[in-house]
Amino acid sequence: MSTYHPLTEQESIDIARNLEQFFPADASLSCKEIGDGNLNLVFHITDSASGKSLIMKQALPYAKVVGESWPLTLDRARIESEKLILEGKLAPGLVPQVYKYDPELSLTIMEDLSDHTIMRQGLIEGNQYPMFAEHISTFLANTLFFTSDLGMNQQEKKLQVKNFINPDLCKITEDLIFDDPYTVSSNNNYEAAIEDAAEALRTNDDLHLEVAILREKFLTKTEALLHGDLHTGSIFIKKDSTKVIDPEFAYYGPMGFDIGAVFANLILNYVGQQYWIKDEATRASFRNELLNMIISIWQQFHDKFLALWEEHGVDRIANQAKGYKQYYMNKVLQDTVGYTGAKMVRRIVGLAHVADIDRIEDDTIRNQAQRKALAIGTELIVRNRSIQSIEELVELVKSN
Amino acid sequence: MSTYHPLTEQESIDIARNLEQFFPADASLSCKEIGDGNLNLVFHITDSASGKSLIMKQALPYAKVVGESWPLTLDRARIESEKLILEGKLAPGLVPQVYKYDPELSLTIMEDLSDHTIMRQGLIEGNQYPMFAEHISTFLANTLFFTSDLGMNQQEKKLQVKNFINPDLCKITEDLIFDDPYTVSSNNNYEAAIEDAAEALRTNDDLHLEVAILREKFLTKTEALLHGDLHTGSIFIKKDSTKVIDPEFAYYGPMGFDIGAVFANLILNYVGQQYWIKDEATRASFRNELLNMIISIWQQFHDKFLALWEEHGVDRIANQAKGYKQYYMNKVLQDTVGYTGAKMVRRIVGLAHVADIDRIEDDTIRNQAQRKALAIGTELIVRNRSIQSIEELVELVKSN
Repeated sequence: MSTYHPLTEQESIDIARNLEQFFPADASLSCKEIGDGNLNLVFHITDSASGKSLIMKQALPYAKVVGESWPLTLDRARIESEKLILEGKLAPGLVPQVYKYDPELSLTIMEDLSDHTIMRQGLIEGNQYPMFAEHISTFLANTLFFTSDLGMNQQEKKLQVKNFINPDLCKITEDLIFDDPYTVSSNNNYEAAIEDAAEALRTNDDLHLEVAILREKFLTKTEALLHGDLHTGSIFIKKDSTKVIDPEFAYYGPMGFDIGAVFANLILNYVGQQYWIKDEATRASFRNELLNMIISIWQQFHDKFLALWEEHGVDRIANQAKGYKQYYMNKVLQDTVGYTGAKMVRRIVGLAHVADIDRIEDDTIRNQAQRKALAIGTELIVRNRSIQSIEELVELVKSN
Repeated sequence: MSTYHPLTEQESIDIARNLEQFFPADASLSCKEIGDGNLNLVFHITDSASGKSLIMKQALPYAKVVGESWPLTLDRARIESEKLILEGKLAPGLVPQVYKYDPELSLTIMEDLSDHTIMRQGLIEGNQYPMFAEHISTFLANTLFFTSDLGMNQQEKKLQVKNFINPDLCKITEDLIFDDPYTVSSNNNYEAAIEDAAEALRTNDDLHLEVAILREKFLTKTEALLHGDLHTGSIFIKKDSTKVIDPEFAYYGPMGFDIGAVFANLILNYVGQQYWIKDEATRASFRNELLNMIISIWQQFHDKFLALWEEHGVDRIANQAKGYKQYYMNKVLQDTVGYTGAKMVRRIVGLAHVADIDRIEDDTIRNQAQRKALAIGTELIVRNRSIQSIEELVELVKSN
């Protein structure tokens, strides 16, 4: 039972039944595999009598998105489980609870969040999430600060860097985000109708210089332990609750990469709303809320991060050097802007897209949205090192 | 025999005798412990009949410099041995050959370099080393390029980062170079006569900001596998040969830290020469040669690094993005300037000093040299992010 193999639904039920003190002894469990089948199996196990349920996520030894030819280490299941447990400690209530991790089976057993919605879907439907900025800014400030050299023992941090070396999953990001979109690659995926805009990505020298610098930081800057894939499809949400899931891309990298992932996906939704919300006034109001949300997330992140630094900073000279905190937060903002742009561009011309834009049925509106996302993304990347405030980012989005 | 304990001279002879095909079977070996007793035992084993000899270096589980109260992991012997072997492959002939590594005993058996001089001593004696710039620039270009994301498989590089996580030895650098000199610390060590200059280090806001930024890069920038302690006491030299030794501080960090270590120690010698070379014309000429050496090392490093990049670059976008190579080399230069300054300052007010200045017997000249080194070091640190050429660094040294 404990040698690695992809589980069947019946096997997953047997494992769930043996989980101590979870389901009643006589429970009649049912199971459904609900994964998108990309990198993992996901089993939803329920006991209709008690109403109790849980999720079992098992890593597959390959990425199905490109067939079995893209092998992926099962070690990512350990990374995901350990990162989830750490996030639960640093940002209580903002991630699913982990009940058990089985290293042999690369299996994580965790809280069922079926009462939540995937945020991407919720935004497409035009739902408002008034707590999101508060929740995600806490998640970002706490997980980033307390895993950085500012907020944890610096020798233990080095051991954390070692523990979260994640070559396979980082390779996916390096290829799909920081290479393919800017060259002719079989991994790219876009409609012929925007070929000229895709071509423009391949011939823009200023863009390439900044992408090279952003790629370099992704490869070399062990600033904090990142989630690594923090888009709105990795967030379960409802009005009063936010749960960040799926940290299998976790590794030590630049903070702005996580923050930029959130912003990029909010802006992609902003762009896609041209189609989704038909009423003009409602759409304008919703879009305005999205941009306000970005400002609020940054401001709250900024303030919470600095408050943690003030109270828990471990680095004497970083704590005391005049001007260093401002220098630091400004660099994080600039990285955030650059990674926001990089994550928008890849979602239009790269391998993996977003429903916010891809599912727009009207060809003209969809292609307009794709072009707009590329224009915003490109400008964010090109200008990232000169941005001085979150308002500049929002103005840049509005003006495109 | 193979359980860890500090070896006696007799035990080291027994081990040497068992080294396959090195000494003749009937050799009459003699042994002398020649370490400075800081972090390691160093046994020099010779066979006077055959003239053959070797060095055995054994790590001690503590740093003697501050008594047995500063424990150090023996893992640094593995790191040193693996780094030496790697350097031997990347920069053939520029490090001692490793004959054997015994992990149980934390013991490295290697080439005897007794026919060489420690470069610091050679420079103090006013010797010229016409091949040094060529040798050390090759060492730097090859070891740094081929361990970076520019010159090696980027997934294997991540495993190298993991393999060379070195918390104990990095902690020494973080404390002694990037903290203590800028605050009141019991680790500091300087004469009362320069108290005002030491005090000035503790009250200079511009300096503290730059030290905080240099410290941050030391903590987070996994740019290349560094030697980590590349001062002139870690270099064996003679006219036609240069051998870099003692890489126990090896870890993934910013390239400029290694280059800056070389420059700092050349400049410290430049400053100390006010005492050592009595004849004014000879002194002026020697000093001029030291500054020319710095320019030559940088220029050769720069050209060799770019040539390697041109021929062996593995990163598509880094290879092709217009302006990126210039951006990259400029950042390495600026880091080099900052770390040069940081390594000069710590050698004057910090725990460990250099003979080039400490052994000056004339109090006035010695204190003048200490003040000059602090002035140069401080200015290099404060100005590092605006330096655009190696000539600026040299002009800055001359003008102090």
